Amino acid sequence: MRARDLAVEYETVSVDSDAMEAARLLAEHRLPALLVVDERGEPRAILPASQMIKILVPGYVIEDPTLAAVVDEKHADRLCQALAGRRVGDCLPHEATPPPIADPDDTALEVAALMARVRSPLVAVAETATGRHKEGGTHLLGVITASHLLHELLGATGASDSS
Amino acid sequence: MRARDLAVEYETVSVDSDAMEAARLLAEHRLPALLVVDERGEPRAILPASQMIKILVPGYVIEDPTLAAVVDEKHADRLCQALAGRRVGDCLPHEATPPPIADPDDTALEVAALMARVRSPLVAVAETATGRHKEGGTHLLGVITASHLLHELLGATGASDSS
Repeated sequence: MRARDLAVEYETVSVDSDAMEAARLLAEHRLPALLVVDERGEPRAILPASQMIKILVPGYVIEDPTLAAVVDEKHADRLCQALAGRRVGDCLPHEATPPPIADPDDTALEVAALMARVRSPLVAVAETATGRHKEGGTHLLGVITASHLLHELLGATGASDSS
Repeated sequence: MRARDLAVEYETVSVDSDAMEAARLLAEHRLPALLVVDERGEPRAILPASQMIKILVPGYVIEDPTLAAVVDEKHADRLCQALAGRRVGDCLPHEATPPPIADPDDTALEVAALMARVRSPLVAVAETATGRHKEGGTHLLGVITASHLLHELLGATGASDSS
């Protein structure tokens, strides 16, 4: 099976999306992360829910968690001010790098090798400028998560059940 | 709301569990990770699905992914030999550390501070030896994921919808 057949939809936001909207998306659908694309639709980063937690929590509380206990929970609405007026691009960790990108024609084992090398929980599948759409950047087909790929690798050997 | 009320069940395996069984669990339920506990039931590590991918893929393919294309997919059953006879403890990354552990009485903000400080996607909730069960180690109540916690923090402020 090829990467194009393994790719599935993944919740995606733009670097210009509203940060609060992105946080709600993560929270309401209990997503571990969002895929962030740039203005041209090219994968820019993975934004984990834990990063949004980090932005919501005041710096002095992160440094000294005992201070969390003295913050009145009724004033928790102040937390959300940390997201007000910010874009998703402003919330990315400084070290955020684009997820690895597989070619639609890559085999499951090629995708697995890519994932293993960069230790990423997911791989984006896209036709790049060196592929079919030379005229216009990257065309994102979806993502392949580690557990989905594991299912493919194990299932191909009959190690998985047929359910 | 306190950590004990936010904790949910999470798929858990022991360091002594069969590695292939753990891989199947990840694959069949499309889980991003498993919680690994030691012989005494204390949280030992988080085992991400991507780590199992790394163990399945031959080292020479990780180093040179172009070699993946020349591996006959019909021989993919050889991949699973990498897990044969191994225990979960043998599959943990060398740098694996226990997940952060919150006290059942911690507030959501205290848990958030802990998560933000160590940049973990989840926090285990356990009564430790310094808590109620002084006689016998750690009693694991469950875990709190980043997205679940985000829902609590946003929801407490009315920023989330009521669905």
